Amino acid sequence: MVERIKKGKTLHGIVVHGGVAYTAGIGADDIGQDMEGQTRQICAKIDALLASAGSDKSKLLRAEIFITDMARKPDMDRAWLAWLDESDLPARATIGVADLGDPQRLIEVIVTAAC
Amino acid sequence: MVERIKKGKTLHGIVVHGGVAYTAGIGADDIGQDMEGQTRQICAKIDALLASAGSDKSKLLRAEIFITDMARKPDMDRAWLAWLDESDLPARATIGVADLGDPQRLIEVIVTAAC
Amino acid sequence: MVERIKKGKTLHGIVVHGGVAYTAGIGADDIGQDMEGQTRQICAKIDALLASAGSDKSKLLRAEIFITDMARKPDMDRAWLAWLDESDLPARATIGVADLGDPQRLIEVIVTAAC
Repeated sequence: MVERIKKGKTLHGIVVHGGVAYTAGIGADDIGQDMEGQTRQICAKIDALLASAGSDKSKLLRAEIFITDMARKPDMDRAWLAWLDESDLPARATIGVADLGDPQRLIEVIVTAAC
Repeated sequence: MVERIKKGKTLHGIVVHGGVAYTAGIGADDIGQDMEGQTRQICAKIDALLASAGSDKSKLLRAEIFITDMARKPDMDRAWLAWLDESDLPARATIGVADLGDPQRLIEVIVTAAC
Repeated sequence: MVERIKKGKTLHGIVVHGGVAYTAGIGADDIGQDMEGQTRQICAKIDALLASAGSDKSKLLRAEIFITDMARKPDMDRAWLAWLDESDLPARATIGVADLGDPQRLIEVIVTAAC
């Protein structure tokens, strides 16, 4: 069975199948904030998405993090590591990409979690 | 058991394990077409790949869409949303990247599906 | 149950759940080497990561390969195809991205494997 949650116009925010939750790309709602602020917003949105699927941040399997400016990766890391318990850190890749749809959008994150 | 289908020179087009199908990056065969045309071709190729694995587009879990020009995202969306039933939309991320191997190649898509 | 292996400062190198192993983005340790050399290093690191999770390269499901210079894709392919048995090739996507954190870092690879 496939469970689809948090429908938007073009996607579902999170889809669950076989004990695994697959999120969409998650961006900040307020892209006027800096990298650390946008990352904090994304972490809060991941919390909400995972909760809607009966999961939580302690069950993250992998995070794919796309950022438009690698020089700001330390700011992302600060918010990311403040959010997660050290023992629960997921596998993670951080990739520097050209464009996330708006020059102010600095980061977008896809996560996969157990649930 | 791991089932590998549609072998190419460097990859299999789709690999199935544990009730989940993982596709390769799927691009259009005719990259002379525009974003909407390339997306339509990709959707048809996804249909064929999923069918070969005993799945179909109603079982998509996640799509990762890489495009080289974010300004053409609406054209991609048009073809994408015409292809899928609204209730079956997968989790999705659209990432603007530098290069898909040819300046004419505008889009490449990875999907994960239940099967 | 989620098993986390090879902890680093910001991530685990590989996380296992439900018979699937999810790796972090894997880069070469010596980025002074060229594309072929970096790819060879990454393949060796994938071997070690998969072994730590009770898996191996014959069980790869999908590889997502991020490279900063598409012109060097053939050099990556040479090392990649020398490493894998033809019948075990995973689904694969190769995406040209802007930045992997250092101008010398030419390639980073995420893999998903059965285990």
